[in-house]
Amino acid sequence: MSQNSPLKHDAGRRVSTQFLSAERVAEVINKKGLGACIAGVAAYIEEDFRRWNDFDKCARVANHSAVGVIELMPVADATTYAFKYVNGHPANYRQQLPTVMAFGVLADVASGVPLLVSELTITTAIRTAAMSAVAARALARPDSRSMALIGNGAQSEFQALAFHRLLGIETFHLFDIDAGATDKLLANLAGIGLHGKRFSDARSAVKGCDIVTTVTADKSNATILTPDMIEAGMHINGVGGDCPGKTELHADVLRMGPVFCEFEPQSRIEGDMQQMPADFPVTEIWRVLAGSVRGRHSAEQVTIYDSVGFALEDYSALRYMRDVAAELKMTETISLIPNLANPKNLFGFLAEHRGAQGQLLAALAAAA
Amino acid sequence: MSQNSPLKHDAGRRVSTQFLSAERVAEVINKKGLGACIAGVAAYIEEDFRRWNDFDKCARVANHSAVGVIELMPVADATTYAFKYVNGHPANYRQQLPTVMAFGVLADVASGVPLLVSELTITTAIRTAAMSAVAARALARPDSRSMALIGNGAQSEFQALAFHRLLGIETFHLFDIDAGATDKLLANLAGIGLHGKRFSDARSAVKGCDIVTTVTADKSNATILTPDMIEAGMHINGVGGDCPGKTELHADVLRMGPVFCEFEPQSRIEGDMQQMPADFPVTEIWRVLAGSVRGRHSAEQVTIYDSVGFALEDYSALRYMRDVAAELKMTETISLIPNLANPKNLFGFLAEHRGAQGQLLAALAAAA
Repeated sequence: MSQNSPLKHDAGRRVSTQFLSAERVAEVINKKGLGACIAGVAAYIEEDFRRWNDFDKCARVANHSAVGVIELMPVADATTYAFKYVNGHPANYRQQLPTVMAFGVLADVASGVPLLVSELTITTAIRTAAMSAVAARALARPDSRSMALIGNGAQSEFQALAFHRLLGIETFHLFDIDAGATDKLLANLAGIGLHGKRFSDARSAVKGCDIVTTVTADKSNATILTPDMIEAGMHINGVGGDCPGKTELHADVLRMGPVFCEFEPQSRIEGDMQQMPADFPVTEIWRVLAGSVRGRHSAEQVTIYDSVGFALEDYSALRYMRDVAAELKMTETISLIPNLANPKNLFGFLAEHRGAQGQLLAALAAAA
Repeated sequence: MSQNSPLKHDAGRRVSTQFLSAERVAEVINKKGLGACIAGVAAYIEEDFRRWNDFDKCARVANHSAVGVIELMPVADATTYAFKYVNGHPANYRQQLPTVMAFGVLADVASGVPLLVSELTITTAIRTAAMSAVAARALARPDSRSMALIGNGAQSEFQALAFHRLLGIETFHLFDIDAGATDKLLANLAGIGLHGKRFSDARSAVKGCDIVTTVTADKSNATILTPDMIEAGMHINGVGGDCPGKTELHADVLRMGPVFCEFEPQSRIEGDMQQMPADFPVTEIWRVLAGSVRGRHSAEQVTIYDSVGFALEDYSALRYMRDVAAELKMTETISLIPNLANPKNLFGFLAEHRGAQGQLLAALAAAA
């Protein structure tokens, strides 16, 4: 962290905050290549999850309303602090807005200086897909070649590309209750040379696949997958069941094989696991990535990754985007924190920025 | 909120986030006048505290390290969500950095769109002083004319100006263990026509004053004020005791009169009250502002306001700054959230922002 700190690079300002806008992140991704970015974020996630115990972790802080939720997700190690702001509003599409929008910050633990403000709407899709693929690489059968994608919304292309890039998945079986979403996904997959096939229901899409990814957006307790749809050796990547009252898997699907999650205290509240008793066994995925717990035990076993999204993934993704933007020399800055000539003279900062008109008005205000 | 929503103003973008930089906020304050801004924020704070039960409140979320703390402070009502990022690093002055740096966000509860990102380092000083003055106006003797200011750092000018503007305080008794801080405060007060007098210790500064404000930065359990220094009829405005392990008042000072706070669950952990048993009586200040509880009962009574800073004050201050920036037509925007042609086609946003070079690299990456 300290090597890339703008505190050292920018001698003219003691406090400098980098900014990555949505358009700038799109440019960075286009320059680097989306597949390369997903692989890069996956590598950063693996690196960070392997040192899980270095981090000060907590469940996210949520403000719920009738139509959605706004959450803050902080995490820190000894040198770097990160947080993400993210909403979830399933009906947003009605006013042509994304269901999920996000931005995030990296900060210096030693001084509290915010080092980077970045968009995370696009980046969250990358990190969620990267995390799914990292987990699947540790849990799915190594000979997996086909994946069902149930839910063909904003996240689906990223899941497909992550599983193609990191696991070599070649065939994607697609289903969404919105046929237009599947049209869009088919077109986007074709554009990057991936093979998608449309199915008329989830059951037929899942049939015969090595991996099943559920990434639906409906804020309700749904049962996208039932036990009779699950075949021996499948890996289930449950992405869309990610907040209280929002599930995708029938409870009995979770009893068909070992269940893995990110951060247990959060997943028991938010994941598909919210349906299970408090003592239902679950393994945090970092233990598998760090090599202390074995993932899959046999080719016949069913494995289940109950993803909800954890702050550490955003920490990793922010780190990656900062590093790539620096490498490509695409960094901008914003003035979020005042640079004070004397840190005890905040009042003096106002005087420094007083023009002729400002001085007059201030004098009038003081006299009033 | 909805009247000022950029969602309605900016027809070309469905999602638009306003940005107020540190310099822009300084310009806004200079144009409007610092005294007017403090009075304006105080009015917004009173308005919001009087409808206390409209808000979804929680204690702030803190990540502590050996040298400081980084906190997130969210709050929301039915229409508007706000949060503040703020650090506290007492040793920052050694590297010429402010002890406290902050920024914050207003967001739309109905859609989750972040509407405003603003600096809050300067604004926090304004809102803290405004909150102190709002509480003192409800608790101090109406004939108060003098105030001791113990601690002459970054916050002190704002406290002096707030008490001058909102309570008519004319004389300020100053003390700080750093004589240079008092030099700075004396010069700044003279510049705005306020009368400060230097004292050689806290005891002599406090003597004979109507109001005593403690706003020291040391992260320790200090006893700036002891019971023998407190005179009948005084109002104590304790600002600097604001996190676990950081207090300014001797425990027995808190027993000399009724104690008022912002949000009880947070103040019991962070305020000077952290020294007291869990059943020690305290009154949330909103009850006094809303008229349901009487503040001061007699001219002889000692009153104590144990301030720690609460998210709702930042909500009010962000509202005020947004409104004044709009009134002065000084609003900028940043692109924090991608504007998607189709909200389910996040992937398509990347293609829209692909230049010739980007397309080539993306094609190479896809082929790799």
